[in-house]
Amino acid sequence: MSGTNQRIDGQRLWDALMEMAAIGATPKGGVKRLTLTEVDRAGRDRFTELCQAVGLTVRVDAMGNMFARRPGRDPSRLPVLFGSHLDSQPTGGKFDGALGVIAGLEVMRTLHGLGIETEAPLELVNWTDEEGSRFGHSLMGSGVWAGVYEQDKAYALRDGDGVTVSEALDGIGYKGEHPAAPFPADSYFELHIEQGPILEREGKSIGIVTGAQAQVWYDAVITGQDAHAGTTPPSTRRDALLGAARIVELVDSIMRSRGEDGRGTVGRLSVLPNSCNVIPGEVRFSVEFRHPSGAEIEGIAESFPVQASRIAHELGLTLELTELFRIPAQPFDPDCVRLVREAAARLGLPAREIISGAGHDAVYVARRVPTAMIFTPCKDGLSHNEAESILPEEAEAGCQVLLEAVVARANAPR
Amino acid sequence: MSGTNQRIDGQRLWDALMEMAAIGATPKGGVKRLTLTEVDRAGRDRFTELCQAVGLTVRVDAMGNMFARRPGRDPSRLPVLFGSHLDSQPTGGKFDGALGVIAGLEVMRTLHGLGIETEAPLELVNWTDEEGSRFGHSLMGSGVWAGVYEQDKAYALRDGDGVTVSEALDGIGYKGEHPAAPFPADSYFELHIEQGPILEREGKSIGIVTGAQAQVWYDAVITGQDAHAGTTPPSTRRDALLGAARIVELVDSIMRSRGEDGRGTVGRLSVLPNSCNVIPGEVRFSVEFRHPSGAEIEGIAESFPVQASRIAHELGLTLELTELFRIPAQPFDPDCVRLVREAAARLGLPAREIISGAGHDAVYVARRVPTAMIFTPCKDGLSHNEAESILPEEAEAGCQVLLEAVVARANAPR
Repeated sequence: MSGTNQRIDGQRLWDALMEMAAIGATPKGGVKRLTLTEVDRAGRDRFTELCQAVGLTVRVDAMGNMFARRPGRDPSRLPVLFGSHLDSQPTGGKFDGALGVIAGLEVMRTLHGLGIETEAPLELVNWTDEEGSRFGHSLMGSGVWAGVYEQDKAYALRDGDGVTVSEALDGIGYKGEHPAAPFPADSYFELHIEQGPILEREGKSIGIVTGAQAQVWYDAVITGQDAHAGTTPPSTRRDALLGAARIVELVDSIMRSRGEDGRGTVGRLSVLPNSCNVIPGEVRFSVEFRHPSGAEIEGIAESFPVQASRIAHELGLTLELTELFRIPAQPFDPDCVRLVREAAARLGLPAREIISGAGHDAVYVARRVPTAMIFTPCKDGLSHNEAESILPEEAEAGCQVLLEAVVARANAPR
Repeated sequence: MSGTNQRIDGQRLWDALMEMAAIGATPKGGVKRLTLTEVDRAGRDRFTELCQAVGLTVRVDAMGNMFARRPGRDPSRLPVLFGSHLDSQPTGGKFDGALGVIAGLEVMRTLHGLGIETEAPLELVNWTDEEGSRFGHSLMGSGVWAGVYEQDKAYALRDGDGVTVSEALDGIGYKGEHPAAPFPADSYFELHIEQGPILEREGKSIGIVTGAQAQVWYDAVITGQDAHAGTTPPSTRRDALLGAARIVELVDSIMRSRGEDGRGTVGRLSVLPNSCNVIPGEVRFSVEFRHPSGAEIEGIAESFPVQASRIAHELGLTLELTELFRIPAQPFDPDCVRLVREAAARLGLPAREIISGAGHDAVYVARRVPTAMIFTPCKDGLSHNEAESILPEEAEAGCQVLLEAVVARANAPR
């Protein structure tokens, strides 16, 4: 990479990624580091040691969010934040989340090694429970921090064994004394794998993330009548799976009518009684739509329930559709995005602007603090999967852009 | 009921049905009497006592099939068999199977009470494991008896806890010494609830079953690529659930193109990884078709795999379709069917001819012995369900027809 004299150490970054991946490593080459477990504690403890080794001061807030601070030359300036999350899916990969935290550590190590002092302080963040796999609520730490969720409600959530978030935080010793609330900060940068195929397909090393999609999510229950598959003639069937199949088709067609920016998915579906020779009486499934334009999502939220109910009605079925949540589109801060774009250009890295399709801590943080994200490609666009994979040079490029953007922001004239 | 001087006792029949339903009764009013369990043993033991109380001799074969014999006046004549099964689905009803066995007992009790001796001997049968819920193989006892399945293979089947059929038979003491093989018999009659809505809808008390449908069953696995629902654009999606949805629609349209005689069902379907925000990478599902005409089923078995594979191919998916079995249509014996028709007519019972949509022990027995079945209506056509329900007068009518047909056959000139 040209265009920089503050070069991160790609080998050291990769080694640190592999060291973190060993904590909760799975036999299939992935990671299981569920939030607020003993494995998560081991990851957090090691992260703390590595931060302290380069002179950072680590503080923990009431949600277990961790902030590793490096002072700036001007103590009156607000800190530039950057980071991601160390928790993983149950069968997750090595890089989802960990890349942003460990690359942030490499930024701190590089500045430390070069003896560089920035004007503004820097804070490296590890957000609690981004994945939502254990307590059923993703983006929990950043959501409470940003005021999207109430801390008491988050504390009361239980995992499959009945353990609350509050108990789990106490259990691993990471319920900190600092309030989980949006303290004044200058900005937030997050490096993350794309979790999609676009950068890889187009041969780009860097995604300049300009914002996050609008979303609307539903829970659906479609009810007919279970009956013997051999004896029930077509005219008397009320097959809940046939209704669900037509709604799956509808979701796909709504997505495709929006072109390549459309997203529409039925990811979870279960059939009752789920027996070969019984016509399904009930099907429960999830539906979600995403689009960069909030207006498109508003339009879908208007029309989809009507169309889906019509499908159910025509088949003599009953549809209960519950809108779980609707998230507006979240544009990122133009000035922070510009710093990412300029860093990639200066370094000669092939880059493109991209909208984040996934939810990220950055999306909630952006409600409080000027924010941008950097994406790096991942093999076959695969994530939430033990086979998730990136190349060392991709990690290095992303980390270098992170450093450039963070330092530029921290040294920018006020 | 007019037209008979050998009147069964409807109240005694109903009481015996309720007594059997108490063995394995569920809180929701159904029955859980899984084959070869302690509950099944209790039902078999009680059945044996009741048979012996009216002078029947009970013998058990190597598959646990039970035959309760009443001698005839002419010892050289082959026995007339009748019966059904006492095992139930895990959340089964009171009448599926039990009606045919307990009505058979009522036939024996009536003849005993009236001191009537038939020319041919009579044998009341309780077939082992009709339902297939525990070992995954329905019609097991009658299938081995009729030579459709090999006894050794049936013995080796295991339940969810790893217990084999052979061990389970030993465990409840019902592995008998008689070979499970088709001994010479005159005929077989089986009374069963319809498990469908046709008789109830048309106000008929008796279904004169003329045969069983042809069937073809498949296991399907459709494979795409699981990927993040938020980041994967339409053009790169390979959504296995979309493919499965289109095959569900295809199965329904193949059924409907055959009119009211068509049957086509996807009853079981599961999605992997089954997470809201992951595009499904794999869907596993069952497909079955049934039709009274074997030629129709042959035609479907020819065309369906081609059409389903085309659907998968168009979506970039892979379909593995395994044909599990194909059962030809099984017409019942015209003379036995005539006896049922004449009995219903003589008794003045509204009746119609009907094809059995479900599998029954009678379908396998019919390969060896002249066979007929009698159906009675069941409420809302519901079966394989704890809410399964019939009226006492419906049970009585079916039982009276069974007695008339059995006695007519047993006394018919040779």
